[in-house]
Order: sequence, then C-alpha cells, then structure tokens
Amino acid sequence: MSALFILLERKGMILMSSGLHEECGVFGIYTGSTSDVAAQTYFALYALQHRGQESCGIVVNDKGLFSYHKDTGLVPEVFTESNLKKLGQGNIAVGHVRYSTTGNNNRSNAQPLVVRHIKGPMAIAHNGNLVNARELREKYELKGAIFHNTNDTEVISYAITEQRLAHPSIEEAVEQAMYKLKGAYSLVIMSPKKLIAARDPNGFRPLCMGKTESGAIVFASETCALDSIGANFIRDILPGELIVVDNNGIRSIKTHCNKAPFSMCVFEYVYFARPDSVIEGASVHKARLNAGRILWEEHPVEADVVVGVPDSGLDAALGFSRASGIPYGVGFIKNRYVGRTFIQPTQSQRSNSVRIKLNVINEVVKGKRVVLIDDSIVRGTTCARIVSLIREAGAKEVHMRISSPPFTNPCYFGTDIDSKENLIACQMNISEICKHIGADSLGYLSIEGVKAIASDAKCKFCTGCFDGKYPIDVPKEMPKDKFESKINE
Amino acid sequence: MSALFILLERKGMILMSSGLHEECGVFGIYTGSTSDVAAQTYFALYALQHRGQESCGIVVNDKGLFSYHKDTGLVPEVFTESNLKKLGQGNIAVGHVRYSTTGNNNRSNAQPLVVRHIKGPMAIAHNGNLVNARELREKYELKGAIFHNTNDTEVISYAITEQRLAHPSIEEAVEQAMYKLKGAYSLVIMSPKKLIAARDPNGFRPLCMGKTESGAIVFASETCALDSIGANFIRDILPGELIVVDNNGIRSIKTHCNKAPFSMCVFEYVYFARPDSVIEGASVHKARLNAGRILWEEHPVEADVVVGVPDSGLDAALGFSRASGIPYGVGFIKNRYVGRTFIQPTQSQRSNSVRIKLNVINEVVKGKRVVLIDDSIVRGTTCARIVSLIREAGAKEVHMRISSPPFTNPCYFGTDIDSKENLIACQMNISEICKHIGADSLGYLSIEGVKAIASDAKCKFCTGCFDGKYPIDVPKEMPKDKFESKINE
Amino acid sequence: MSALFILLERKGMILMSSGLHEECGVFGIYTGSTSDVAAQTYFALYALQHRGQESCGIVVNDKGLFSYHKDTGLVPEVFTESNLKKLGQGNIAVGHVRYSTTGNNNRSNAQPLVVRHIKGPMAIAHNGNLVNARELREKYELKGAIFHNTNDTEVISYAITEQRLAHPSIEEAVEQAMYKLKGAYSLVIMSPKKLIAARDPNGFRPLCMGKTESGAIVFASETCALDSIGANFIRDILPGELIVVDNNGIRSIKTHCNKAPFSMCVFEYVYFARPDSVIEGASVHKARLNAGRILWEEHPVEADVVVGVPDSGLDAALGFSRASGIPYGVGFIKNRYVGRTFIQPTQSQRSNSVRIKLNVINEVVKGKRVVLIDDSIVRGTTCARIVSLIREAGAKEVHMRISSPPFTNPCYFGTDIDSKENLIACQMNISEICKHIGADSLGYLSIEGVKAIASDAKCKFCTGCFDGKYPIDVPKEMPKDKFESKINE
Amino acid sequence: MSALFILLERKGMILMSSGLHEECGVFGIYTGSTSDVAAQTYFALYALQHRGQESCGIVVNDKGLFSYHKDTGLVPEVFTESNLKKLGQGNIAVGHVRYSTTGNNNRSNAQPLVVRHIKGPMAIAHNGNLVNARELREKYELKGAIFHNTNDTEVISYAITEQRLAHPSIEEAVEQAMYKLKGAYSLVIMSPKKLIAARDPNGFRPLCMGKTESGAIVFASETCALDSIGANFIRDILPGELIVVDNNGIRSIKTHCNKAPFSMCVFEYVYFARPDSVIEGASVHKARLNAGRILWEEHPVEADVVVGVPDSGLDAALGFSRASGIPYGVGFIKNRYVGRTFIQPTQSQRSNSVRIKLNVINEVVKGKRVVLIDDSIVRGTTCARIVSLIREAGAKEVHMRISSPPFTNPCYFGTDIDSKENLIACQMNISEICKHIGADSLGYLSIEGVKAIASDAKCKFCTGCFDGKYPIDVPKEMPKDKFESKINE
Repeated sequence: MSALFILLERKGMILMSSGLHEECGVFGIYTGSTSDVAAQTYFALYALQHRGQESCGIVVNDKGLFSYHKDTGLVPEVFTESNLKKLGQGNIAVGHVRYSTTGNNNRSNAQPLVVRHIKGPMAIAHNGNLVNARELREKYELKGAIFHNTNDTEVISYAITEQRLAHPSIEEAVEQAMYKLKGAYSLVIMSPKKLIAARDPNGFRPLCMGKTESGAIVFASETCALDSIGANFIRDILPGELIVVDNNGIRSIKTHCNKAPFSMCVFEYVYFARPDSVIEGASVHKARLNAGRILWEEHPVEADVVVGVPDSGLDAALGFSRASGIPYGVGFIKNRYVGRTFIQPTQSQRSNSVRIKLNVINEVVKGKRVVLIDDSIVRGTTCARIVSLIREAGAKEVHMRISSPPFTNPCYFGTDIDSKENLIACQMNISEICKHIGADSLGYLSIEGVKAIASDAKCKFCTGCFDGKYPIDVPKEMPKDKFESKINE
Repeated sequence: MSALFILLERKGMILMSSGLHEECGVFGIYTGSTSDVAAQTYFALYALQHRGQESCGIVVNDKGLFSYHKDTGLVPEVFTESNLKKLGQGNIAVGHVRYSTTGNNNRSNAQPLVVRHIKGPMAIAHNGNLVNARELREKYELKGAIFHNTNDTEVISYAITEQRLAHPSIEEAVEQAMYKLKGAYSLVIMSPKKLIAARDPNGFRPLCMGKTESGAIVFASETCALDSIGANFIRDILPGELIVVDNNGIRSIKTHCNKAPFSMCVFEYVYFARPDSVIEGASVHKARLNAGRILWEEHPVEADVVVGVPDSGLDAALGFSRASGIPYGVGFIKNRYVGRTFIQPTQSQRSNSVRIKLNVINEVVKGKRVVLIDDSIVRGTTCARIVSLIREAGAKEVHMRISSPPFTNPCYFGTDIDSKENLIACQMNISEICKHIGADSLGYLSIEGVKAIASDAKCKFCTGCFDGKYPIDVPKEMPKDKFESKINE
Repeated sequence: MSALFILLERKGMILMSSGLHEECGVFGIYTGSTSDVAAQTYFALYALQHRGQESCGIVVNDKGLFSYHKDTGLVPEVFTESNLKKLGQGNIAVGHVRYSTTGNNNRSNAQPLVVRHIKGPMAIAHNGNLVNARELREKYELKGAIFHNTNDTEVISYAITEQRLAHPSIEEAVEQAMYKLKGAYSLVIMSPKKLIAARDPNGFRPLCMGKTESGAIVFASETCALDSIGANFIRDILPGELIVVDNNGIRSIKTHCNKAPFSMCVFEYVYFARPDSVIEGASVHKARLNAGRILWEEHPVEADVVVGVPDSGLDAALGFSRASGIPYGVGFIKNRYVGRTFIQPTQSQRSNSVRIKLNVINEVVKGKRVVLIDDSIVRGTTCARIVSLIREAGAKEVHMRISSPPFTNPCYFGTDIDSKENLIACQMNISEICKHIGADSLGYLSIEGVKAIASDAKCKFCTGCFDGKYPIDVPKEMPKDKFESKINE
Repeated sequence: MSALFILLERKGMILMSSGLHEECGVFGIYTGSTSDVAAQTYFALYALQHRGQESCGIVVNDKGLFSYHKDTGLVPEVFTESNLKKLGQGNIAVGHVRYSTTGNNNRSNAQPLVVRHIKGPMAIAHNGNLVNARELREKYELKGAIFHNTNDTEVISYAITEQRLAHPSIEEAVEQAMYKLKGAYSLVIMSPKKLIAARDPNGFRPLCMGKTESGAIVFASETCALDSIGANFIRDILPGELIVVDNNGIRSIKTHCNKAPFSMCVFEYVYFARPDSVIEGASVHKARLNAGRILWEEHPVEADVVVGVPDSGLDAALGFSRASGIPYGVGFIKNRYVGRTFIQPTQSQRSNSVRIKLNVINEVVKGKRVVLIDDSIVRGTTCARIVSLIREAGAKEVHMRISSPPFTNPCYFGTDIDSKENLIACQMNISEICKHIGADSLGYLSIEGVKAIASDAKCKFCTGCFDGKYPIDVPKEMPKDKFESKINE
C-alpha cells in the first residue's frame, strides 16, 4: 500500500558535457541609494558563469518591493536589455548561476529562491550542499511544510523561517538556523532592508566581500566577479561568519566561527574557480602552476613537449614545463563556439565527436614524446579519446599527468562527483587506468601534493573525494535524488 | 521598525482587455492504463481557454512519476508537439488555464501546483477564490510555512497537507481540509494513484464529470471540454461533493453536501461559460436567449434592428429579436486575429483603438433605430466608445440593453469584479449612465430577471455582485493583493 | 542529359485549414511629412489579415532610405513594438499579407519585394496572379535574369525594370510594363519619392483609395483597412488605372482603362472579403444576406431553424432566415483560440478533430429540421463532418444550402482553387454530392444567382471557376508550381 | 531630379566586437549516394564559425531538389535538430558562414545564395571580394537585371548565368564567368548534379579539398573543417583552378591557372585562420610561433614575462618566449561565455567594459616587465585599454609587440580593414602610437618579417594592406557601400 517514486524533472536533452560540476555561484550587492543593481548583478553573474550554466536569476529589491527574473539558460540568454530594464532600479540585489546537467522543466529549481512570509519576504542564493537536508526536510514536512522543488535551498529557507517566528531580526534567524544546517553553504540572503552573507563553519565553498568605487558592498563566490564590476576586494568571509549590511553599516556575527576545521574544497583551486580569482589569499592560477610543478617533481618523465587539455589543464602544463624545462606547446584548439544547444553527432558520426570540440595541432605533437596534462579523470572515456587524438596526430609517446589525486569517494559538499561505480579509480589501479586510456605512462598528483598547491592560502582543505576523510559526518548512503521517499498514496 | 510592501509580480505589459475575468478552468483525466493523457488534456484545455488566457499547465502522472510543463501564454503557445511528447504517456493527468491580466514574471503562479511531501506528491488545479485565504495563510506562516506564490492554491495545498499528516488517505485529507476552506473552489487533485474532484458546499463554480469512449473518467469546468475530446457527460459534481477515482473505481464522499445553499455564480450563464456548454442541466446558449427575451419584456422599445456586441452579446440580441420581432442584425465585425501580443495604438492613434478590434457594418445600422445588446457595463468606457461607433455609422437612435443587472458590489468568489470606485453603477444612477455612454435609452436586466434566465437549472444562484447578498460571510475589506502584510524587517 | 525537378520550398507542417485561399492583401501610405507610417501600416495589415496568414511585411521609406521587416507568421507575431520602432519613421510605406499553406522555409517569398537597381530601388506588394508569368519569366531568364523566389511578384519587378531603362519615370515604366502583364494584379509600388497603385484592366482583385484625417493618401485591398486607421474612403481604383502620389499631388493614368471587361472576382463577396468592407460600392455583408435570400428563392425548404457554418456562412444564413421566415439559430461555437500552431489530433483522435474547432449547441438543433448554410464545398470532407456533427446533436433533417455555385473549373486569377480531380463537383452530380455529405437535400446558388448578390456594385463579375468562361485567355495547363522547368544540368 | 540614398540594412544593434573581420567561410560536400550531408555540413560550419558569425546557411540537394535554411546567428543558434532534419538527406550540400557586424534585417544577405533559372538552379557560397563588382552590377542592371541584396555573390551569380545561356554545362559557364570576375573569390557552387569549387587566379583566399572515410569529396575554406568531420586532406585548390565533382568523378579545369601571381592574404596566417589549420602546406600555428620569433629578432627587449592577448596573440607570445628565453605567462582570462547577445555596459559602466571580456591575472604581471603581444592594432582604442589593464595590475613596464606590420592601406580582397582615417598607423608614427596606447615601447613585425612567417608555404603573399602594393588593379575609391548609386526617381 505504498510506493516509491521520483518526481521526474530530469527529462530533457542530455547536454554534451563531461567531468565535474560545481553547484552554483552567488552574488549580492547593497547600495546606499537606488541604482542599477540589476545590471551590476548581470555583469557579476557573467563572470561567475563557469560555476553554473543550467539556469540563473536576479532578484532586485526596490525599497522592499521584490522583482525577479529567473530561467534556464546562460546569463546572456536569460537576460535581455528589455527584461533587465523591467527588473528596474533598486538598492539591493542578489543573483545566482546554477550548474548544468538537466533539461527543460526545472525552471522551478532556478535560484535565487524568493520566499513570501508574514515576517517579510526574503531571497536566498545558495552554493553548496547540506548533508542533513533530507532529515530537515522530513522534519519540516511532518510539521506540515510543503516543497515545490528538489533543492537544498528550500530546506534552508524553512530552517530560517522557523527561527524568524522566534527572533525579531532576520540575522538572528539565520544565526540560529546555522545551528541546524550541516554541510556546505555559502549563502547570500536579501530581506527588504538587509543583505546578508553567511558561510558554513567549515568554509567548504568560497565567498568574498568587496566594495565598488561608488561604495556599494558586494558579496561573490569569486573575486573575478568583483573585478568585472570594478569592485575592490575587501576580504573573504570567515568560515562560520555571518555579515549583515543595512543602512547602519556592516556588522559581522562570529557565533559560528572557529567551531570547525577550515576545510575549503581543494578542487576550487584545481578546477572550479577561474584562474584570475584569488581565494583565501592564494591565486588560483598560481596554484595550478604549482600543481604542474609538483606533478613534475612527483612524476618526472623525459619528453619533447608539454601539452595541456583546454581549458583547465593549460596552467598546470605551463607549470610542468617551467619546472621540467620541457617546452610548453599548444597542442589543442578548442572550438569556442560550442555551446549549450550543440547538436550531438549520431552514432555513426560518434568517432569524431571529440574533434568537433577539440582539434589537435599536428605540428606540435608529430613525432614527439608528449606530456599531456589534465585536471582529473572521472570515467576515463574522454581521456582515452584525447590520448587517441594525440596519437593519431603522430605523437611517439603520450605521458598522461593529472593535476589532482584519483577520485575514490563521493563528494557531499556541492560537487557532482559520481557514485563509486562510475569512478574509474574505484575500479582499476593506476597501471590499469594507464592501459585503459592508452597512455605510455600515467601519474596523478599525490594527496600531499594537492594540499601543497595553494600553500599560501589562509585555509586548510577538504580532500574527502580523494581519501574519504570528510571533515564532518556524512550520510551512510547518498542517493541520486535525496528527496525520494516512501509515501502513502 | 516595520514596513508595508508588495511582492511585485505585477509588472509587464498591460494587455488590451476590458470587462470581467473568470479565474481559471480545470481538467483531470483518469485512464485504466497508460495512454496519451497529455494530448487529451491539451485538447480539453483548448476548449476551456476562454476561462483563462494568462497561463496554463499540464501535469502527467506515469505510475507515480509526475512530469509537468507550465508557462504563461495561450494553450497553443505554451504547448508544442515537442514538449507534449516530453510529458509523455501516463494514466492520470490534470490541467489548468489561468486568467489574464498581468505579464512576464508570474510564471510561478501558473497551475496546476505540484507539491512534494513525505506523504506523497500531489498536483492541484483550482478554480475559485477563498474568503479566508489570508487568515489560513497567516496561520500556516506562523507555524513555519513559507509561500512561493500569491495565489490561493498554495493555501489549499497547505490545508490538505496539514490533514495528510493525521489521515491515512489523500481523500480523507481533502475531506477534512474542506472544513477549513471557506469560499469558492472547484478542485481537481492528483496523487500518485488517484484523481479527486471536489466542489465547495455552495457550488459557486461549475464542475462536471464525463467518460470517454475508451472508458476514462474526466472532470472539467465545462461540458465543452468533454465534447472536445469526445467524452460523454455523466453528471455535475454536487456542491460539497468529493469524488475519488482510482483502480477500485469511482467513489463519492458527500460529507459536505447539503450544508449550504446552492449558489452557482449566475454570471457563468451570462458571460463566462461557452454557449455550447450545459451547466446544471441548463444550456448556456439558451440562458442567454432567455436573457434577451426577458430584457425585451422588461425594457421594450420601438426599433429597426437588434445588434449584439460580439461575442457575448450576440445570443441575447437574438433572444431579444425573437421576442420583440425586431430584425436581428450583424452590426459588428470582430477582428479574429487580435491576440495577446497586439501592439497598442499610441495616444494619437487612440481614437481608433476600438475599431482595430471591432468595426461597424454601416449598411446594417445606417439611418436605423438600433437596439444594442451587451452583457454588462463595468466602467462604461468601452460601452461609450461602441455607442459612438454606431452613431458615427449613421444610427438614428441607440437603445442600450444589458443582459445582467448593474454591478454594485465586489465578487469574493473568483471573479475579477472591480472595487466599487471603478464600478459605474456605484457612481451614477441609470439615467446618468445612459447619458454617460451616449445612448438614447438604457435598460438593465432586473435581478429577478437574471435569476430566471436559467430557470431549468438544478441550482440556485449567487447574485452578490448585483445585490450584495452573499451566501456566506465575506471579509469586511477586500484588498487588491490579499497577501500584502506588515512585516518585521 | 536533362532532368525535371522542383525547388523544394513546400516542406514543413501542413496547417489545419481547408477551403479556399485568397492570395494576399496590399496596403500603401503616402504622407506629406515624416510620421509613423510603419504603425499605420501595421494596423491596416491587421485588418487585412484574413486575406493572408502565411507571411507579412512592411517596407518604410524615410526620404529615400528603405527599411523593411518581413517574415512568416501573422501580423502580431511578425511585428513587435521593438521591430516596428526599428523600422522607424518615414513618409511612405507599403505592406503586404500573404496566404497560408506552407511552412518554414519560404520566408524568401514574403512580400513586399524590395528591388535594388541602378535606376533606384522599389518595393512592390502584389495581390493576384499572372497567366503569362511563366512565359515572361522564361523570356527574362533567357536574357540573363536570375530568380530568387517562385512568385509572380519577381516577374512583375522584371517587367517594370525592363521599362525603367527606357523611360525616365517609374510611373511610365509601370504603365509600359502593364502592356506585358496578363492576368490579375492589384499592385502597390513604392519608389524613393512616389507611391503608385495599379490594377489590371479586368479589375479582378479589389483595390481602393482613402485619405486619413491628417491628409495621408492610402491604398488598400479592402475598405476595412481604411476604417482601422480612421481613413475615409475616396474611391475604388478603376480597372486598368494607375495612380501616382508624390509631392506634386495625386495623378491618375488611364491608358489601360476600358480596354477589357470589368471582371471582379465574385468570390470576394461570397467569401474572401471581410463583411464590413464595401467593394465597388456594394456592401459585402449585404451581398451575403442577398446570397441567402436568393438561395431561399432558388431552393426553398420546410424547416425549423437556419444555421450558418461560422464564420462565412453566418450572413447568408441570416439572409435565408429573413427571406424564409424560418428562425435563425446559432448552431455552432467556433473556438476562437485555434491558431496557426495548433497541434493536430493523431489518427486515433481524428474523429473529434472538427469538434476542437467547432462544437454544436445541441439545444438549437435537437429534434429539428435544420437548414445548414455554408459558402462553398471544395472536396466535401469537411462538409460531411459538419453534417454528421449536426445529426449527432439530434437534428431530424439536414438541408444543406451553399451560397455559391459548384466549383467546376480552376481559378487562374489569384485563388487557390484546386485542380479538377479534387473538386467534388467535377466528380459527382448534385444528388451524389448530397448523398456523399449525408444531407437530406442540397442546393447550390445558381450562376445567375451569384451574379445578382451584389447587383448594386459598379462592376461585372468573373465567374470562371463556376462556368469556365474566363474573361481573358488562360493557359492550357496549370501546373501546381508553374515555375518547374526542364533544365540542362 | 536625382537623389543619393542608401538601402538601409545597416540598422540594428552594434555588437561588441573590435578588430578585423574575415568575410566568410565556405564548405561543400558531394557523396555518391544519399546521406546526411546536412549534418556533415553543420559540423564543418561549426569548425569554420570563426570566419563569420553574422549569419549562416546550408543548402541540401536531394537528386535535384534543393532545400535550404539560412538565418542570422551562429551555427548552433540557426540550426536545430528539427530544422536540420527538415533539410533532410541528400547527395550534395553547400554551406556558408558570414561575418558579423550588423543586425537584424540582413537575413537576405545570408548565403549560400540560391538562384532559380531556366537552365537549372544553383547554390553559391562565396568568400572574398570583387574589385569590379560595381561595374558588373551596373552592366547587368542596364541589361534589366534586378538585385535583392548588396553582396557580391549576386553579381557572381549573374556573371555565371550570363554564360550559362551560351554554354551547355555549368562548369563552362563558371569558367567563362571567371574572365569577367576581378578580385578575390573562393567559391563552392552546387548545381542539380554537380559540385564545383573555384578559386581566383591570385588565390587570395584559401580553399582546400578533402575526402571523408566513406569517400565523399569535400571542399572547405580551412582544413580544420575537414578534421571536424574526419575527412582527410587531399590538396589545396590551385589559384585559378576550377574543380568539378559529379558522378563521372573529379575533373580539374586549369584555364585560369598561372595567369597571375599567387597572392594569398598573409593575414590568414596572422589572424583569420584557426591555428590548427594548415594552409598551402604551412601550419597556421607554426606561422604564428614564427611571427613571435621574428618579432623578438626585430624588436628585442629585456623583460620578465611574455603575455599574449587572447586568443590570437597567444601563439606569437609563445614563439617570442621561446626565442627570447623570457618566460611565457598566462596574463589574461577571457570570459568564454561572452557572445553575440551580450548587453553593453552603459556609459557610466564603460570603464569596466573590457574587464567583462578580459581579466588580468595580477599574479602574473605584478611588479614585472611585461612583453605584451597582439596580432594587430587598428584604431588603438582596445590596445590602449589592455595596456592600461596590465598597468593597473601592477606591471612595471609594458612592451607592446605586434605580430604584423602597421595597417596603412585598405584591403580590397575580402577583409574589413577600415578606411585610412580610422587606421591609427595612417595618422601617427610608431612613437606617437606607442605614446597613445601607453606602452613603454612598441614594435611591429616588418613587412619582410611577415612574409617570412610561413616560409614553408607553397604560396606568395598579398601584403597590400601594409605596403599598398596590390597584386591587381584596385578601384580609385572604395566607398563603404559600394552599391550606393545615383538614381532617377
């Protein structure tokens, strides 16, 4: 008399994408007086687009009046001059970009989430992943809550709302709610009169604060968003910190600080963040150069040229080249027009599918011993194709070097790392992987190595996906859709 | 330390529309086995399109898996072959059309509302208006509920969810929730295994049941939706009745029946419903012919031709003509291509704006004494323009006859009748209105008259908008956005 | 060494449409000074939309600078506030609507056609069909001309251009070109400084002139377009006449007048034109009432109600009712939201396909002897379905009356009347057709009758499609795509 | 009595683009039997997208039946699975991408041009620019030709058509037409049974031939298009050569070969072509490395890092670094999501407009002497902004190096190089330019240097834009729209 089922919002076209996905980028701006906060947010989201290509949204607050526009698509697809103008002027705004795996119908999952409530509306933009979302959701549902979406953000909004009923101010509500929320969250929250930034006590995901030339305070997932609107970096939000901006100025609430080990996701440096961003004081670009250098130190090889897989392998390849003295070569051209709506080659055209995105410059690799650098191997399929491309172009040897350790464990903190059965490093040892991808040698960065790439950063790292050592308790099982549930009919 | 504000989703273009708006049409289908329930729902919503042009949606249930597509726009705009195919096959579906006044951003108000909950998901399609929605909403919010939208449907879903926690089956939950809901509601609700129809104890809005040739059970706001998919009419849902369809068959729950006076909205016959529908046993077309006949009996006049204002005045004009013996004439041509996206004439072109939609056939009215029939006068502006068009075309006299009584009170049960200050009949007496619109005489149908137009119907009528006699208690004040509220910041 | 082939622009979805298609509506406006001619043309095209739903276009002339926008779709689909604004202000404009049968790719056939040439550009909007287009085209091709499209308008533009090389002014070029053009053409032509209207010597298609309140001169296919922009009717263009408007005023060139019998297409009155238009002094609505009256005189019958098939049968039904004394009834409701993009029911849903567009009001026909009036029968399929609908609704008898004579011959002058093998009246006699459509009796208007419906018009009629008597020589064969041709490879 | 005017198709939004534009990329495919030529063309156009972003089109030939789809937009925007499927299967196809400067209304300029003619239809795709297009056009117009567009391709189609009337086969017609056409043209032409490639006698623009694994013959502007569909490179088309493919095989016509000096545009190597392409035997990537090396030899400088401006300056920077021993650095991150529809910052946000596209990695340049490498300087504005970005990021010195000589003359052969008044090198000497852009030193590649970058190529180069030495006579004046003309009204 009961049934298991899934709310199907996963239909729609499968996009041509492989590898890992970061779950989201957030942004918020607070200006003293009414101005074009929608346009500022638009440009900032543009700079954060690499953190999420599925959907995006902006909520503008004009003296308490909330307007928003959200949809699936890239920032320049979703926002037009006309709908940005309709959003209008305001004194506070929040924005969000969301990562891309699914299709048509999940417009309702687009953020920021706008919540109406007797204590006042709020808009929430969230980057991260809760480990106790399912428990919380069940608890709220058993108290009568209903859910519209399948994302954590709605759970967070319930947690905050629960506290608002007992506490006079929204910042106290957020502060109290943080006792309930377990996991990774970098939040930007807007109430009618306030802009609030909050980061989980482990600081899993980055979040920084800046100031524009005209004095507006902004929060963003990465500093590249600050640069894009000409804002100066002030500082990173501390793990567990909550910052409130209103017409009384800026106020920091540190109740949850220093309660947990600082555990920034090291993969932000390896892959997610833009190389021009600076996180916790460390340049992402420089961290990747370092990764290349350490790779050379850990896995030296005699070769004629070092080639990076665009875009994320390029910096590490340069670092490897500098350290080794082996010349750096541009071995691939990536088609910069391949976008969301790209049509898939049919089965019979499949052999060329990688070539449409990535073409080898034969000149660079022909007759050479090539060191090929990429940031990671997930399933191994794409990697094998790329090695094969290089060989077809005449490379004599292909030495694969990976600028991170093997993935052997799922991520519970906001990264779309597959279940164990799909991770090649859970199925094979290094030499088997090397054979599988068709390389002459294969070297991964060690766990010690990856911890050292951003040694100048003011943080420690979470390396759970590499070694299974998670800084906080994680669920025993991690279902694909964590909000599946048994139900009475 | 508190502030009043409004969640602004009312931005966007104002469409070219006047008169009254029905709030929604609902549809549901239950088939024994998997079939093209999405397509059936599509055709049914097409037939119900006149009940709501703002947005529409379909939710398909394939053995517990819910898929949906909802958006702003007309049914043929929102649904394409491709997205109907994506919705796929299923054994239950619900659909909804919503009325049209606002613009871009309120996609989130589109129905059916899909709700996720530990007790199982449900989809709700609602036509009507609660009089205690604000109280209920406040109550739920104080218990921690959050709201995404500004419509009653979300309130109803909370009321049902509250009961689900205490009662094993969804039909019991609905049955219990009906004790809390005050006002007008015709509901179609889908759970993973059941399709449920429910009508408020006063039966304000219509709701009927039919059966397709292949044996599927369907519920619809009007019989014209049944006709469009070749379904046979079974019967109207009783006021207060709840019907459950599942694989055990059809079951009626009458707990709330006969607890309140039957109070169908008489305006369904006058204006809202399609003339080819039959409601509570009475033909809508025939009711309008009757309205014309009674108009003649109450306000006879010597004239040469009777002309109806398209589309809703045509039937009454024919009834008036038959009763009076004055020839029926086709006085207007309505441009059948004027749609949602029509561009408004600028101020300088304004004088012709009615002519773009409606042109007079001079031949028919030139030199004649014309009886002009329309269904209602709201503000008087459109009516004055139409009288003026007829005069410009050479009519000698224009005798206006209205097939309903003057609006003097707001509607609390799902009709968009304006506040008193905008109702011309609250500001002027009949002879002032007559002068205002430029007619030679003016006659409204009496309240007794309007009650008699569907005398063969199995129901009594609500005539609250004409006489202020509401069948149930109504709120003292009726704010435009009933979910505005004082908030703490 | 040669091959027959067709340029395939006929792909794409087949729209749900039956019956006949007029090929196009034209409009032009000349203002003394710069003004919003694009908007005026937009509203005029709206009023002419019934003459063509496939594509439309507007060309604006701002002191010699031509801007245009053309596309497939209805006027309100193709033109937005934004692209109308981009067209900008100007002092002359021409517009065009084109009829609808095909799909996606024929944007290139959209009119007005804009032609660049050393003697100056011109824009041409054309309604009609040449009988010697193929000969002319071949002649121009053999002189080196190339063609982009498959329509007559490009042929006409070559004919005019040929003359421009020899004659100083564009009006002389048009005047001379008219010696070459055989067939039906109502043209509106714009040069950098002039607006020109021209009508073929037989006057097959209507074309009239009006003046706006601000003094602009306008030309339009029908007077309803004049009404829509508040212009006053001046007069119809004479058959063979050419009118030039420039800053010297209005000039008529009558070289080609009175050279051929006036042969207006009588089907303009029966079906094509809007009832509120007045053509050659005769009201279209009144002509249809007359058609109904004459039908009664020619084919009387005892019955209880007269019902017209919407929209074009309604006026004739009213005329029949008035003449016969049999009550006029509203037997059908047409879904006014069925548009271009309507999704077709699948084979299994086919039986209901008519019902989606047209539903019977049972009340009106149940148990009655019904006279059913439509404007024509082409293949008989739709007619048979409609008769069947009426019978299912309980009609005791169905007497079909058609307000035009049987189609027995193709039209060469701009109407999409099918080849003989698809015309039911070429395959069956009247009693066979009656049986085929399932009626109890069937009566067509006689040829004498149809000639009499607009007896007050200042024209004679072409009745070629009824009696094969064409006013000018027609080609022996009329291929579907007249520009198919043998080619060398 | 005459007037000068311009056919306005230049309206519409100005896109965010700077630098030079290549006018087009072409592609053609001939298969023995019916197959998915549309999809193959789609993938090839994707690879050629960098040669033109304004519009694109594909024409498919299915046994003589031509179908096409063309529109403004990028390849993945214009083509969807659905419209590619509509184009259907065929045995020949041609495709085209066109460069991007203008907006909305020039859909009619999209190629391939499809021409209908009594001798058979043809489709033409063209890359290049005629120097006698205006004369030819005037000549054809005086013979009665009309023009729909403002591009050279229509002129070429007239030239071919003129010859077709006198010659039995299309290849003879093209061969003869080549006597009339002066300037740059790489053509792919399709008739019902043949695919033809032709290149002007100077070989200004590249054009190559390849063969797919299944044996289809393809022509493409660049080899990267061959790679993308897995075709093997056969050879480059010779200057003046004409290649015909039909069911008799491949035939070369060399009538026009060796009649003029080989004069490939050297800018194809510097900027236009994709680095992974090989033109006339020389790798584009290697040519750019060479350019960097020669730059170092010609303009050495002491510095700490070499940084290229993405994307086209990167390869030359690497070459410079290798030659000089100065470390190569990744100084900029280019936002890879900035596309066509990007919204422009307003005046007040202008100072950051470059940063939205391009952000500096401070780490790389801070406190350093930077060699900055770009491919060219046109107006100097963008260059100045980039130098300023580097300085703001803390560079101690900025030494600008340009991998081509200064532009001092217009291009007449298909490149959008501005008129002299907009070329900074026509207004200032090197030291003035250096000061203007804010650099510490500035060095351009010499003319001798640029000629040496692809010294292994089988061609000589046109360097007209650098030294005014054009390989053929050029017009005295080069008006912006060469088809403006005096006209009689």
